Amino acid sequence: MSGAAPPQLALRQTVDEGLTAVEAAMRTVTASQVDVLRDASRHILGAGGKRMRPRLLLLSYLAMGGDDMSHAAKPAAAVELMHTASVVHDDINDHGVLRRGKPAVNAIWGRTFALLTGDFLFTAVYELMAPYGDLNIDLAQAATALVEGETLQASAVKNNHFNREVYGRIIALKTAALFRAAGAIGAKLAGAAQPETSALADFSFNLGLAFQIVDDILDLVADEAKLGKTSGIDIGQGRGFAVALSEGSSNGNAPPSDSLDSIKRRMLEGDTIDKARDRANLLVRSAIASLDILPHSPAKEALVELAQQVIARES
Amino acid sequence: MSGAAPPQLALRQTVDEGLTAVEAAMRTVTASQVDVLRDASRHILGAGGKRMRPRLLLLSYLAMGGDDMSHAAKPAAAVELMHTASVVHDDINDHGVLRRGKPAVNAIWGRTFALLTGDFLFTAVYELMAPYGDLNIDLAQAATALVEGETLQASAVKNNHFNREVYGRIIALKTAALFRAAGAIGAKLAGAAQPETSALADFSFNLGLAFQIVDDILDLVADEAKLGKTSGIDIGQGRGFAVALSEGSSNGNAPPSDSLDSIKRRMLEGDTIDKARDRANLLVRSAIASLDILPHSPAKEALVELAQQVIARES
Repeated sequence: MSGAAPPQLALRQTVDEGLTAVEAAMRTVTASQVDVLRDASRHILGAGGKRMRPRLLLLSYLAMGGDDMSHAAKPAAAVELMHTASVVHDDINDHGVLRRGKPAVNAIWGRTFALLTGDFLFTAVYELMAPYGDLNIDLAQAATALVEGETLQASAVKNNHFNREVYGRIIALKTAALFRAAGAIGAKLAGAAQPETSALADFSFNLGLAFQIVDDILDLVADEAKLGKTSGIDIGQGRGFAVALSEGSSNGNAPPSDSLDSIKRRMLEGDTIDKARDRANLLVRSAIASLDILPHSPAKEALVELAQQVIARES
Repeated sequence: MSGAAPPQLALRQTVDEGLTAVEAAMRTVTASQVDVLRDASRHILGAGGKRMRPRLLLLSYLAMGGDDMSHAAKPAAAVELMHTASVVHDDINDHGVLRRGKPAVNAIWGRTFALLTGDFLFTAVYELMAPYGDLNIDLAQAATALVEGETLQASAVKNNHFNREVYGRIIALKTAALFRAAGAIGAKLAGAAQPETSALADFSFNLGLAFQIVDDILDLVADEAKLGKTSGIDIGQGRGFAVALSEGSSNGNAPPSDSLDSIKRRMLEGDTIDKARDRANLLVRSAIASLDILPHSPAKEALVELAQQVIARES
């Protein structure tokens, strides 16, 4: 009984090793001498989260032949911290009290320190990435897109102006751009050529769109305990999503004066949720098709599996 | 009548050209398709400001023989945008309504959009700097220090725990670190050797400390119209500064229960302000001494002049 582990098992071990290094990098870079920044950062990071973005970066890196997890861990940590910074600021603006099943940073430390903690997580991204040369260009563009997406969403809520097109722009900017950066950075770190880098960027972008649609569906239908965050926090936001989803579906638009509950009920009774799920499924199929040009590898298989999990997840 | 302009005049033209390029870079990078981000960014940038940090970066660059203003303008713009991002977030936390003589971003667009505008200005920093390789390390460290300094200040206000040492740490982190980065980045952009880079970093750091002390004095004694921002916004913050300044001075500590007005009155009657000015003067002399190792040049003279203006300014 000897020999190497089966390829899929070896891959899982490598990814686990990478994710452990990601956690270590996030802990190290947030080890501020300023207590509240360190404590609040570790609270939100320690509350879990799916680590989708670092996983995507590491798998893209491995799929392109990368084999040094310590080299890829810092950019993977940066991508997760970028997401976490936006989550902390988002919960201030939405008055969220629950995040990842734990109290939100603003609920424990108040708005002022939550704002500063989000800023700190952002500077941590910058510190981690500073030695990585031109990869900063990918992440900087995604960071700007993320803030633009959050702002478009807040504007759409404020002006009660949501439709499918606006919703599409919002999720492309606030979610899919960072997914794309994760895939592209993973590929580039491994020295991938342009066509393969684009393939992984496209895969990741479409996966990000699907991920956000599923997230929004869950936010409408799941109960809070399962979701681990304040659900349907902002009635305007929930309604905006509902309006965007129901456009063109058989149960029509949600009148803007409706309560979120009545919109939810009608959506659950009609086929709106099914149609949204169909869109997410289509995006995932399109994402997987982008991977055709990649050589076969356990990491490529794992990317396909990751995409399928995005559709299947229930929390 | 022919020949080159006198060196000091030629320098002033070069610096003006550089500062014009800085303004252009800031406008370009904030040209978001998202209206509120573009409008709020341009509002705060258009409200003026002394442009101390970009000026410092450009003069450091010129003093080390740099001669391509278009190369130095983007990092100089990034340093100013970093400062501006922190100002926008600061005004949210302090409920500031006036900044640079105009309404604060939060006063016009509200807290949610002000928070996102600050985030956006920060991602603009990141975008501008991304192509500048290892210079990102200098700016990233300064960015983290800035947020740590703001957080220490908010903690000290909240816990009413201010003394001279805490005050010293706060201004080193929240102000002097970014000044140092400006000097160091300017020097490195021009290919300066390590001793000259350190000299300009030290000069800039001490200048930053002096600048903040003078700023805090003006915040206590100047009237709002002259200052162009909400003065003594946070009574705890004003008191903290007063306590820090008055420690060891002849009129003793300010009791924590005093009103800001009575602290101000006592400070103006005693020699506290004079002692604080003495400290700022000493820091500026020390800063100027750091420049001894630099070759003589009009830019070096202009740095000395800039340092003297920091002491002399009245708003």
